[in-house]
Amino acid sequence: MQTLKDIVLSSGKAVNSDVMKVDSFITHQVDPSLMEQIGKDFAEHFKNSNITKIATIESSGIAPALMTAKAMNVPLIIFKKEPSRITNGSLLQTEVTSFTTAKTYELTASPKFIKSDDNVLIIDDFLANGEAITGAVRILRMAHATVGGVGILIEKTFQPGRRKLENAGFEVYSLVKVKSLKPGKIELED
Amino acid sequence: MQTLKDIVLSSGKAVNSDVMKVDSFITHQVDPSLMEQIGKDFAEHFKNSNITKIATIESSGIAPALMTAKAMNVPLIIFKKEPSRITNGSLLQTEVTSFTTAKTYELTASPKFIKSDDNVLIIDDFLANGEAITGAVRILRMAHATVGGVGILIEKTFQPGRRKLENAGFEVYSLVKVKSLKPGKIELED
Repeated sequence: MQTLKDIVLSSGKAVNSDVMKVDSFITHQVDPSLMEQIGKDFAEHFKNSNITKIATIESSGIAPALMTAKAMNVPLIIFKKEPSRITNGSLLQTEVTSFTTAKTYELTASPKFIKSDDNVLIIDDFLANGEAITGAVRILRMAHATVGGVGILIEKTFQPGRRKLENAGFEVYSLVKVKSLKPGKIELED
Repeated sequence: MQTLKDIVLSSGKAVNSDVMKVDSFITHQVDPSLMEQIGKDFAEHFKNSNITKIATIESSGIAPALMTAKAMNVPLIIFKKEPSRITNGSLLQTEVTSFTTAKTYELTASPKFIKSDDNVLIIDDFLANGEAITGAVRILRMAHATVGGVGILIEKTFQPGRRKLENAGFEVYSLVKVKSLKPGKIELED
């Protein structure tokens, strides 16, 4: 998606070779018309996938996921990050450890909102090592739902997230592919 | 707003006399077209207030705040909840203790995205005791910005949030006013 590529190059900040800051347009300050364009792009890409619900992980995925849900006219389910080891038997929960922050949390959803006949499109802001998304996949499997695809705003192709998800049989569609990060320099895939 | 009143009465769950669950339409499962209607309602109400930005508090406020930002064609700023006592001198931070959950966190924003000439509309899902919103007001004051108003989806009128905000001189506009909660029974203001 050219619009998002241009913004990543003009406003993204490579902090080091692993981490990129996108706080001026995705995670902290959000441009609603950019999010609407992103939602329409995901909806167009997955229009023949019979998606019944969108799922995302709080909180940076909520804005693009909401706009995707609106464009596809389906509900959005927000998976919560609860403190690790606070488990609740009536909820769907799985432990996730972020590679970037080394923080561990319980990804949590209610079984009320995900059913075995749901075909769920997972939307998130970043794909790097894939911890959060593979956690979301585990939650959907606990509910016996189907993963209809994975839509990502910014994929770091030098990390193994895509490979893990494709090996599990899922389609991964990302709007921007980052090839490498160096302090002050972001290189995109062609 | 009649649509939201009807949904609160049909799908909200009074857990006890203080707490109401809205997980099927606001906090966990989100109806994007309801959020779009809510955004348009807030935009209409505050159309003459010269709002330059929307602010909200992660994560249940993000969906309605994004739709308000879209309807008003201004950026959305998401205030983050950081663990208490993790402070960072380059950020705007203020401690907030939730009355409902008794949890304490540092409400956090970057000074990069709030300027002294900003007139900010704060949007959040609930107004009860007003801790989160008065925290957001403190953040905006640290940035020397102006509070252009407060928009709330569901106000609990038996708790003192509105009084605190009105005493501080702010306009509070809420879409649904809950007069009382009893297990299984939600009563709205006329």
